[in-house]
Amino acid sequence: MTIIIHGLFMSTGTAKVLATLLEKEVDDYILRPVDIFSLAHKKPEYLALQPFGLIPAIQDGDLTLFESRAIARYICDKYAGQGTALLGKSLVERAKVGQWLEVESHNFHPPISTLIFELVVKSYKGLITDESAVEANLSKLSNVLDVYEQHLSTNMYLAGNFYSLADLSHVSFLHYLINVAHRGEVVTSKKHVKAWWENISSRPAWKGWRAGLASPEFQLAGSKLNGKVV
Amino acid sequence: MTIIIHGLFMSTGTAKVLATLLEKEVDDYILRPVDIFSLAHKKPEYLALQPFGLIPAIQDGDLTLFESRAIARYICDKYAGQGTALLGKSLVERAKVGQWLEVESHNFHPPISTLIFELVVKSYKGLITDESAVEANLSKLSNVLDVYEQHLSTNMYLAGNFYSLADLSHVSFLHYLINVAHRGEVVTSKKHVKAWWENISSRPAWKGWRAGLASPEFQLAGSKLNGKVV
Ligand SMILES: N[C@@H](CCC(=O)N[C@@H](CS)C(=O)NCC(=O)O)C(=O)O
Ligand SMILES: N[C@@H](CCC(=O)N[C@@H](CS)C(=O)NCC(=O)O)C(=O)O
Repeated sequence: MTIIIHGLFMSTGTAKVLATLLEKEVDDYILRPVDIFSLAHKKPEYLALQPFGLIPAIQDGDLTLFESRAIARYICDKYAGQGTALLGKSLVERAKVGQWLEVESHNFHPPISTLIFELVVKSYKGLITDESAVEANLSKLSNVLDVYEQHLSTNMYLAGNFYSLADLSHVSFLHYLINVAHRGEVVTSKKHVKAWWENISSRPAWKGWRAGLASPEFQLAGSKLNGKVV
Repeated sequence: MTIIIHGLFMSTGTAKVLATLLEKEVDDYILRPVDIFSLAHKKPEYLALQPFGLIPAIQDGDLTLFESRAIARYICDKYAGQGTALLGKSLVERAKVGQWLEVESHNFHPPISTLIFELVVKSYKGLITDESAVEANLSKLSNVLDVYEQHLSTNMYLAGNFYSLADLSHVSFLHYLINVAHRGEVVTSKKHVKAWWENISSRPAWKGWRAGLASPEFQLAGSKLNGKVV
């Protein structure tokens, strides 16, 4: 059964879902673009899939599912037997992955999503960036990443010595901060965080996503990927 | 092995963990109070358990774990064979529970945590409530609960027709909004949300928590509970 992903290649949540599919070696899916620029995500047809009017959402047979982090977990659960063991292999590993997934949601995401809104989304829309919000959130993000720095000084990855969904979940926002907004000092000034970033962002799934992101075909139209991006 | 919970009975995250233990019929745990009023949670000893300096955190043998939502999931995973099946019983049920857990984190939690901060925490600390922040966040919360209202008109619980961790995760914040801040119109004015709230908040685990909350013994000191609160 082909999984239908309603989203956009450039959206951080859609990217998370695509990278998860690639890591899990699932290739039977299509990306169906949602034209958020004409507010397609606020129209009844899309609201029937995602009642909060946000991308992404997926359909897998009869199942409709939204929230990028829940979709990623679902893919890991459904394809537990193949690809990278993104949720860990034991009770303790799963606990640690779960912990760092929540750190991403509750510590990392609030400042970095505000930064990407101010620095990338607003500039894309021709709105004026609030520099004081940028400074305040860079400082918050730096404090959060100080905890990562210490943790990563004795752990190769967030959940321990294996790559997991917790690491994967950080890449798309960091990509925009570092490579698009060019405000990555907060990452690259911290030795272990920098090494971790270089490691996790160079995996085939993410290199594929960046290559796709650069191609106009993917950028606005979305496309049938079927694993071809790697 | 006795699970040690570092937290406070009155904390919404600690409450979530306690309610999960009660639903899973786990009674070998103790609550070890963290005196946040004297900033015990910002001291090195506690930061070694929870590097962001927030409660709760747990120790289960050699495992230290923080983030209330990750702790709740861990308890469900470890005790999968007993108590209420809070994460669902099938791939699709788990997916739906996961979706609504993320809705709690990303749609419900931002406005309601701001409301509780403004209405309860600030008043507890003798600070002045920002009424415009209250109005703005009541309105955001109301929009979120409008989606719940429609969903709950055809589903008894968030994830479908079974009680799950997604429902449980809403109770402690709603309790403070409705029963402590007395600003529950946003809930009680919506027919299905009101019925859902009455249903989920009357489960033994939550009635036990409220009874405990009212007792001074629990309120500040924490206590060895061992299931006795129900
Ligand atoms: N918690 C949601 C957030 C989704 C979200 O914010 N999506 C953005 C794009 S990455 C969106 O739909 N923005 C359009 C809008 O806000 O109107 C998830 O992770 O799926
Ligand atoms: N995402 C964390 C949040 C924990 C949190 O905010 N805890 C509050 C009490 S419920 C706290 O420690 N507050 C003290 C402070 O902020 O200094 C979790 O769910 O465990």
